[in-house]
Amino acid sequence: MKRFLSALLVVAAIVALSGQPARRRVSLLVTGGTVITQNAAHRILAPGALAIDGTDIVDVDTPAAISAKYQAAETIDARDQIVLPGLINTHTHAPMVMYRGLADDLALMDWLTKYIFPAEAKTVSPELVRVGTRLAAVEMIESGTTTFVDMYYFEEEIAKAAFEAGLRGVLGETIIQFPVADAKTPAEGLARAERFIKEYKDNGLIVPAVAPHALYTNDKATLAASAALARKYGVPIVIHFAETEDEVKTAREQYQMTPTAALESIGVLGETTIGAHGVWVNDADIAILKRTGTGVAHNPESNMKLASGAAPVTKYLAAGVKLGLGTDGAASNNDLDMFEAMRQASFLAKHATHDPTAVKAQDALDMATMGGARVIGMEKVLGSLEPGKRADLITVSMRSARQTPMYDPVSHLVYVTRGDDVRTTIVNGKVLMSDRRLRTLDREQVIADANRLAARVRDAVAPR
Amino acid sequence: MKRFLSALLVVAAIVALSGQPARRRVSLLVTGGTVITQNAAHRILAPGALAIDGTDIVDVDTPAAISAKYQAAETIDARDQIVLPGLINTHTHAPMVMYRGLADDLALMDWLTKYIFPAEAKTVSPELVRVGTRLAAVEMIESGTTTFVDMYYFEEEIAKAAFEAGLRGVLGETIIQFPVADAKTPAEGLARAERFIKEYKDNGLIVPAVAPHALYTNDKATLAASAALARKYGVPIVIHFAETEDEVKTAREQYQMTPTAALESIGVLGETTIGAHGVWVNDADIAILKRTGTGVAHNPESNMKLASGAAPVTKYLAAGVKLGLGTDGAASNNDLDMFEAMRQASFLAKHATHDPTAVKAQDALDMATMGGARVIGMEKVLGSLEPGKRADLITVSMRSARQTPMYDPVSHLVYVTRGDDVRTTIVNGKVLMSDRRLRTLDREQVIADANRLAARVRDAVAPR
Repeated sequence: MKRFLSALLVVAAIVALSGQPARRRVSLLVTGGTVITQNAAHRILAPGALAIDGTDIVDVDTPAAISAKYQAAETIDARDQIVLPGLINTHTHAPMVMYRGLADDLALMDWLTKYIFPAEAKTVSPELVRVGTRLAAVEMIESGTTTFVDMYYFEEEIAKAAFEAGLRGVLGETIIQFPVADAKTPAEGLARAERFIKEYKDNGLIVPAVAPHALYTNDKATLAASAALARKYGVPIVIHFAETEDEVKTAREQYQMTPTAALESIGVLGETTIGAHGVWVNDADIAILKRTGTGVAHNPESNMKLASGAAPVTKYLAAGVKLGLGTDGAASNNDLDMFEAMRQASFLAKHATHDPTAVKAQDALDMATMGGARVIGMEKVLGSLEPGKRADLITVSMRSARQTPMYDPVSHLVYVTRGDDVRTTIVNGKVLMSDRRLRTLDREQVIADANRLAARVRDAVAPR
Repeated sequence: MKRFLSALLVVAAIVALSGQPARRRVSLLVTGGTVITQNAAHRILAPGALAIDGTDIVDVDTPAAISAKYQAAETIDARDQIVLPGLINTHTHAPMVMYRGLADDLALMDWLTKYIFPAEAKTVSPELVRVGTRLAAVEMIESGTTTFVDMYYFEEEIAKAAFEAGLRGVLGETIIQFPVADAKTPAEGLARAERFIKEYKDNGLIVPAVAPHALYTNDKATLAASAALARKYGVPIVIHFAETEDEVKTAREQYQMTPTAALESIGVLGETTIGAHGVWVNDADIAILKRTGTGVAHNPESNMKLASGAAPVTKYLAAGVKLGLGTDGAASNNDLDMFEAMRQASFLAKHATHDPTAVKAQDALDMATMGGARVIGMEKVLGSLEPGKRADLITVSMRSARQTPMYDPVSHLVYVTRGDDVRTTIVNGKVLMSDRRLRTLDREQVIADANRLAARVRDAVAPR
């Protein structure tokens, strides 16, 4: 005790002698990188620094100003790196990493009915979902995703694995008309969803959601019941919509409406609805999405690989529809790298509109950050680096040959950066990866577990 | 001498006692990986091994068979890796890495006339070309490209830098109607090209070529003179063609023909011609390309980023046109990663044809290997791992989370692998990179030199 008091006196003396005020103690500093804040003014500090305390960003300023004002238990040196908001993946099915590359280059219905559905019927289990989510978490943390929107089975296992990994998630339990691994009927699925919502509704990282799979895989009553459940608890709805041209045909036959209009008529759309794909929409549909405040998750890689079409991204942006980016599940992509999603969003929009000025690098980065935050209704706490917001951020190396020279950091983030360039991933103020070392997951164990279960998946689809 | 003889006797005794014949001494073994040979039967050895002696592959077999037959000064352990032919980039402008990200998201003519041409006019020099090529060489070696087809200015500097780096190149000196950094007139360019051809025509790595820039940037006489020069020395012609819809319009006005037909009429097409882009071709044009034996370099990323259109890849493949992949220059891509080019070739073809079965993973890999070899007329010595062919090969790690699990190595190469996964790059039997350490280039020096020159480029395009 005496020794401690002496030390304290020495510190006080040093502060007094240096003429500087005592610095505020915070939990974490990130200093020295080019800080791309993604705030409303698109402010970039080169170099910049952040002070983080607990779960929140408390200050963004120059390195000198931050070091004068704060001291922290841990400091991350981000020199030669870009510091930016963590990327928000607005549409995926995390455990489907277990099926990546299982079957490619097939027509959508062949792919689903000959490979994915049979593989899922035989192999989806709480264990596979848990192991798959851990593998997806490794991949997401390593590639700079800090928040993901999910829809799958045994979503409570996904929530548990994501929470343990430290990732933020908007996680929707699937509601679907036919029997699936975790529910024989939609009613069973809804009951499971309600239990899941109750368990997670006050969690600081996990937002539970209801995920009616799509218009064409649920009847009207199930869709309405799903929407009612979401409204009862004030949680998001996650749904696929207007992904393929076939879906438009089916909706016209069944509802005499577009998928978008049909979903609105059933009460599925709204401020807390996250609709994935939105490829086949007309101008009236876009107006519906804007009016209802529905968020759209654009998945350029999945849409290209499955030849679904090109979502009218420039029209969405012009109309002010909430627009985020997603990777979709790894069975149809085949990875969870949001840097690829940004690049593809830009490339596909330019190609589809015959306009090289469409979806500029900055637009793609906006979609992956603030856009995603708006889609999930968390724009007040996520999507940019500003005091008072949650500390969800990443640092990205810029020292590769392919990133040399660097004239424009935003161009480089979108056009030449890979998920593997991410060095640090921080969610809710907690460092999940530092200098590419994972802190919340045992990487080798996760990969070994995934490879062990993959043998079962391989057997399940093996021709007899 | 006595000691040497004793040692020899001991070795002989061991061989005699073990009952095994003496193993053939070779220069290099690569053993233990999944060997994707890309031979006509698409044979895959899992695991496999290669014996390399001097510049050539002498054997491809199981690891046990190879180790029984050969001993080598150096052995590369490729366990957990895929071994495949080095990738052939059939279209780039290597030194343009110096302009990557300098200006993006612009209409083609704005991009060229406001940024690229002014930057080139003020900064292209032998030094910039040398430094830029070294930077490009680092990037290519690190991302698994072993051969590149180039078109730029001061091509002799590119040849020198590529040769020193140990890369294989088909390198075309640019012929263009207007004054450029290395030639005031096309005649000067042709004279420079002839000197370059004479200097390099018997080089084991570098194939010199004549590169008339395009139909729309050269008059008929210059194009004919370029073709004549190439024929005189039996060297390839490298040219841009049918890249944009505007180019078709211009050709119709000037020649009352498509660009492809016009180039044929001038005598530019043929078995040794490498035409880049080929986006705007009709069925008659495709027949011309097939009949003349002209090779096509497909550049999906550049075509998407500049909104040029989608080359009819499936038609080219159906017609049997020689088809390879290219990255184009890094100013319009923005990198030289051939894994991205493969992925984009598949994605873009699926999207453009509305057919998810178009350009399967295997098709994309074929284009980047044997297809590229055919385009450059080197299919007898490059493009696959077979005894008697040149030892141009790479090993690629498959241990990342995004590559887990692995059901199909070819799917993984195309859909989830990045250039950064390449561990070993071998050209002409020489190891240019081992375990990601470069052996022929001083990486830090190359990057420092590039950053130094980049400051000049930045000044050259700075608004006044």
